[in-house]
Amino acid sequence: MKTIGYAAESATAPLAPFHFERRDLRPNDVSMEILYCGVCHSDLHTARNDWGGTRYPIVPGHEIVGKVLEVGSDVKKFAPGDTVAVGCMVDSCCECDQCKKGNENYCRNGFTATYGSPDRISGERTQGGYSRHLVVREEFVLKVRDDQDLSRVAPILCAGITTYSPLKAWNVGEGSRVGVIGLGGLGHMAVKLAVAMGAHVTVLSRTDSKKDDALQLGAHALLNSSDKRAMKTAASSFDLIIDTVPVEHDVNPYVPLLDIDGTLVLVGQVGPLSAPSTVPMIFGRRRIAGSLIGGIPETQEVLDFCAEKGVLPDCEMIRMDQINEAYERMEKSDVRYRFVIDMASLQ
Amino acid sequence: MKTIGYAAESATAPLAPFHFERRDLRPNDVSMEILYCGVCHSDLHTARNDWGGTRYPIVPGHEIVGKVLEVGSDVKKFAPGDTVAVGCMVDSCCECDQCKKGNENYCRNGFTATYGSPDRISGERTQGGYSRHLVVREEFVLKVRDDQDLSRVAPILCAGITTYSPLKAWNVGEGSRVGVIGLGGLGHMAVKLAVAMGAHVTVLSRTDSKKDDALQLGAHALLNSSDKRAMKTAASSFDLIIDTVPVEHDVNPYVPLLDIDGTLVLVGQVGPLSAPSTVPMIFGRRRIAGSLIGGIPETQEVLDFCAEKGVLPDCEMIRMDQINEAYERMEKSDVRYRFVIDMASLQ
Repeated sequence: MKTIGYAAESATAPLAPFHFERRDLRPNDVSMEILYCGVCHSDLHTARNDWGGTRYPIVPGHEIVGKVLEVGSDVKKFAPGDTVAVGCMVDSCCECDQCKKGNENYCRNGFTATYGSPDRISGERTQGGYSRHLVVREEFVLKVRDDQDLSRVAPILCAGITTYSPLKAWNVGEGSRVGVIGLGGLGHMAVKLAVAMGAHVTVLSRTDSKKDDALQLGAHALLNSSDKRAMKTAASSFDLIIDTVPVEHDVNPYVPLLDIDGTLVLVGQVGPLSAPSTVPMIFGRRRIAGSLIGGIPETQEVLDFCAEKGVLPDCEMIRMDQINEAYERMEKSDVRYRFVIDMASLQ
Repeated sequence: MKTIGYAAESATAPLAPFHFERRDLRPNDVSMEILYCGVCHSDLHTARNDWGGTRYPIVPGHEIVGKVLEVGSDVKKFAPGDTVAVGCMVDSCCECDQCKKGNENYCRNGFTATYGSPDRISGERTQGGYSRHLVVREEFVLKVRDDQDLSRVAPILCAGITTYSPLKAWNVGEGSRVGVIGLGGLGHMAVKLAVAMGAHVTVLSRTDSKKDDALQLGAHALLNSSDKRAMKTAASSFDLIIDTVPVEHDVNPYVPLLDIDGTLVLVGQVGPLSAPSTVPMIFGRRRIAGSLIGGIPETQEVLDFCAEKGVLPDCEMIRMDQINEAYERMEKSDVRYRFVIDMASLQ
């Protein structure tokens, strides 16, 4: 199928209209028309080759909501007209222990990313959701309830699941004491999700300036990490801290905030961590961990959870042709809290 | 009670005979004659003020086995003649949630260390086990079974519990895949304990030179961390790695050896950790944690476990007057694997 998207042709080129082909439906494929696509920091990093390995042209986008157009002959779960979603993965080996446990995100053979990965059958590079159409195998397509504002669902597919998965893995529930570092796309979802799970949620910020925003998102408190006295008072008072900061940073002020056996989970920063002190780790059996998106069953779970609890990301809708401006604003953290492309704007 | 020990009078002075007083028995106190005292790296660090804060004179020693001499009027669990042990702690608040859970090692109000801590009642500094007598409150005295070689029990009180506690906290059992970094006092106990729990145990070493030793201790394999190919093959193959290295070191070669959801537990190095990469953490939900000795119930448990399973540290017996030479040898890692002072040698 011929389609149109927005692609980067090089690390320095702005994204621009790009005509390309989506594959013909395989028996287990679902084709969809994309309605909305969220704009994730990874999109920008990949477009600019910040992590290396980007092959051009690249169509980013992995927070995708759309309507089913056609289904392959073996598809059972979906029918034309269904509202569906696709997140960061479009395939995995589906055979290893992790895939069988529903941890396709930790597939032993590596999952196929929604953009920039070789397709497991044809070898051609996947292209993402900044486009009109998408073709994905059934197992990686998710159901979306129609009784909600669909324009705001897309960011659940990455920002949502990336924070939901560690909240679940570390058993957050009623009364859990959760801290959130970084109030961006991921951080604001961490706040909303943890609050919806019944946790007591504190935003950790270097100033008090985000206090009103934090409380509006449902957080119970903001802890100013520059306030040494407040930080000392808050020692050992968190069960889990979700650290969404996307750049190298010092976790040493935060680890002592964890209670005995508490965990700080990194979901944003890929690379070396500034030398953490082992002292609070050893003297309180505290842990530093990482977490990567979530598996397919858990992604369906967070979509259902959000629909049921009325949790939706705070989004700023943009037209497809505003994407380069949106990237510039993202680099200045000038977005509350996620840009979403209205794909109807893609002509 | 008048007693004699070996004390450091300054950071640079060798340890030398030292006459001092043990407190009169309080109603809940047990006094004992010390039979054996293990020699821990912490003793050396404290004697030399490597961590700061040492007040002189200091009598080190926190791996203590002895016989009860007298008991206070309220003591119920012990009687004169009982074989007993004392580890790294001689008191804690006994009232906080951690103490109530048996985690006196993570006491909210700080435990009283066996040497160098202010006594909670009198304020006088505690003095350790390089001495003939010791007086400790009942709750911090442990029972020792007599049907074993008592000269080898002492190192269980620190090296043993320090490695047993994380093995238990991370649910090591039949078939668990455990790695051990550093084959010293702690490392060799980690191997023996993990093997006794039914785990498949691999020693990680920078050369093959310790292979025979590792296998003799019961390990199933040695993985040479300088062998890049072997390290690559071993990726994702451990559930838990106990890292006993006592100095700053790079954990980046080891974290990818953990399976998904695996944990590397630091029990040796106090201070900044060389910048760990978040990549294997994020892409496998791997964790880096710390752990500090263990609580009193767990220390009793490891003593009982060792007695039942016939696990004993490999010890080299020394006379009290050989302690300075032993320290020099420890600094060169020239000990297999723990020095134990035969306190009968203290005249």
